[in-house]
Amino acid sequence: MSLVLRNVSLNGSVVDISIEGNRFSAIAPHLGGSFDEEFDAKGMLAFPPFYNCHTHVPMVLLRGYADDLELFPWLNEHIWPAEAKLAPEDIYVGTRLACLEMLKSGTVFFNDSYFMSEEIISAAEGMGLRACIGPTWIHFGDAEKCAATAAEHARIRAACQHGEYSSRILVAEAPHAIYTVPEADLREIAERSAHDNSLVHIHLAETETEVNDCQKAHGGLTPVEYIKECGLLNERARLAHAVWLTPHDIELIKESGAVLITNPTSNLKLCSGMFHFKEIDEAGIPFTLGTDGCASNNAHSMFTEMKFAALSAKTQAKDSTAAPAERVFRLATYDGAQAFFPEAGEIASGKLADLMLVNPDQPYFVADYNPISNLVYAGESSCVDTLLCDGRFLMKHREVEGEDEIIEQARRTCNKFRK
Amino acid sequence: MSLVLRNVSLNGSVVDISIEGNRFSAIAPHLGGSFDEEFDAKGMLAFPPFYNCHTHVPMVLLRGYADDLELFPWLNEHIWPAEAKLAPEDIYVGTRLACLEMLKSGTVFFNDSYFMSEEIISAAEGMGLRACIGPTWIHFGDAEKCAATAAEHARIRAACQHGEYSSRILVAEAPHAIYTVPEADLREIAERSAHDNSLVHIHLAETETEVNDCQKAHGGLTPVEYIKECGLLNERARLAHAVWLTPHDIELIKESGAVLITNPTSNLKLCSGMFHFKEIDEAGIPFTLGTDGCASNNAHSMFTEMKFAALSAKTQAKDSTAAPAERVFRLATYDGAQAFFPEAGEIASGKLADLMLVNPDQPYFVADYNPISNLVYAGESSCVDTLLCDGRFLMKHREVEGEDEIIEQARRTCNKFRK
Repeated sequence: MSLVLRNVSLNGSVVDISIEGNRFSAIAPHLGGSFDEEFDAKGMLAFPPFYNCHTHVPMVLLRGYADDLELFPWLNEHIWPAEAKLAPEDIYVGTRLACLEMLKSGTVFFNDSYFMSEEIISAAEGMGLRACIGPTWIHFGDAEKCAATAAEHARIRAACQHGEYSSRILVAEAPHAIYTVPEADLREIAERSAHDNSLVHIHLAETETEVNDCQKAHGGLTPVEYIKECGLLNERARLAHAVWLTPHDIELIKESGAVLITNPTSNLKLCSGMFHFKEIDEAGIPFTLGTDGCASNNAHSMFTEMKFAALSAKTQAKDSTAAPAERVFRLATYDGAQAFFPEAGEIASGKLADLMLVNPDQPYFVADYNPISNLVYAGESSCVDTLLCDGRFLMKHREVEGEDEIIEQARRTCNKFRK
Repeated sequence: MSLVLRNVSLNGSVVDISIEGNRFSAIAPHLGGSFDEEFDAKGMLAFPPFYNCHTHVPMVLLRGYADDLELFPWLNEHIWPAEAKLAPEDIYVGTRLACLEMLKSGTVFFNDSYFMSEEIISAAEGMGLRACIGPTWIHFGDAEKCAATAAEHARIRAACQHGEYSSRILVAEAPHAIYTVPEADLREIAERSAHDNSLVHIHLAETETEVNDCQKAHGGLTPVEYIKECGLLNERARLAHAVWLTPHDIELIKESGAVLITNPTSNLKLCSGMFHFKEIDEAGIPFTLGTDGCASNNAHSMFTEMKFAALSAKTQAKDSTAAPAERVFRLATYDGAQAFFPEAGEIASGKLADLMLVNPDQPYFVADYNPISNLVYAGESSCVDTLLCDGRFLMKHREVEGEDEIIEQARRTCNKFRK
């Protein structure tokens, strides 16, 4: 299958971009030859699309279900009782809705941890996105739950190893956090990750309480020092939040090659604190951007997330030059891809063909001195006209296949959670 | 002129809403009788629209012109030289673009201070929005500039008093700030405001530096204490930013009846600090919400502004229950109207007919347990389908009259600022 995008505006030049299979094959002012499909992108600006690096996508079914509460009443009285009602078909329906929301806002990838991960994989496969999926280990030592998660994980791990999934799916280990998974399990996960060479996605150093509790429970070790002890601090680690780090933690992370994932909206909404964007960036530690789940955001828009990332970085560092637009846009695109699909995230010959076309005919896109600044500081989903992932159109002129049905099914599913 | 909106979803009930002239005339499950115009709003949710209470709308022409800089290089090397090139026709074109952006995101009112205010009024009149307009006094004591601003202000004040503007336009006094307008001028403005019963729109206590400088220059008085001395602290005062307030300032403001205007995005982007939302609200002080100008935001979307208001309030107070969605939505709608057009801001018989219709068929509007939470935490401009101001449609099914031409003209105007 070959495709050519004609008359695309890319970095200020108008070019044709061709795609063979799932990779960009050529970029030039005019490409001759014949292609299976031609797409006229006149007037559109091409950019790498967004990679959303920390989600719990089925929680989209709980958007607006309970907001503005203290953490424990929120979890105990609202979120956990609702989650207990989720059936596999709900997870599938919810994931499809979240995928639709992500596609409509320019996102082609999500890194997720939740329950019933086979349904999440199935929905992502069907909608055409890339995903990194790990079943959440969150059993507080309950042997039965632990065994169920282990069995689920073993199934998707085997399916992945047997080539039952497309190349767009990665299977990861996803221990929820150091305070919900016993040490023996963390050590076992570390060993399996080393054996499989699989990524480990964990919430870490999200709140000050987590750090204090960890130091009490583990002889003064910080969460970063503790996971190092467990064998989890290495280049396979994907550490979500990482708000509360000591200078020693920062050194250890840097030596390890681990990647951090910042979630500015969630951190502000839950009052977790502000990620030290400028300091981490100056330390040369790789990090990426994610929206977190819909219960603590409540959206999957990487546009809003970029704006919150830039503004919270400036306020945290008391420096209006921190986290400039170009840096934040790279964070949401190229840097996210590097941490999961390093051959994606760039529009260049030979790279995986992920791309978004932006329609600048929006009032918020004028003035147009700096399109990247407009995307970060004024952008909304509605400027994303067309989206390609792995060489395939997932949205054309804002239409996604089956979108009305996806919304309708999700609405019906939500009825079972109404209070 | 009479109008009926049929099958509107209002606070969970489906009703008809009728409008006679510029006011709501009846709301009931079914309205009989004949109307000049019928509009079927089946499936749409009705809400009061947004009132943007602090703007410098022509700065939309400088969106993305210079970002991520320190305050003084930003002003001296970029913003002020560019502003020096602005001609009256540019102000008109820029204001029309900003009005388009505001309409597309559900806003029917803006409270503005800038230069060449006759052009701003003319554009707002033509586009059908409400506006409160004051020419900015920012002359650092320069007698010539001061005289020009005085003449401009005298002209629009007279035009307003002679009924040359529609009832949608208010003329205000707009001294820029205490550090750019000499004390004698502030006192004169206070007297004229008392005489005219006109509002006074001023930036106040925006930065810590402003407070420190004020205390040095004025014998230890804070900005709030100082404007009280100048006769400006009263129920006509509209105080933008108000980030840095002492307990005594809060008492004085409360006694005075002055209204504050918070601008959370601008405060974060320029590292000014965070407005004490929860504390001010608990003190019972009225306040409203604004986007500020496009050079420090860079958008006029009240959706993003609501989300930043809620999240920065929570983080500032270290309390995830602060600034709940319902409170923030009221801030952006009803509270804004109360401060400028107290007969607007509510969908009720007899009130000024300002209204937005929201189309919930968006992925980010499902789940739909709480539409207000969705508007505040997940909403984007694209859900605003239709907008009425003063009984007149300003947008129907997302179409605004002349929008392509407005964007095209603004693009041409921007060419003169390109570096």
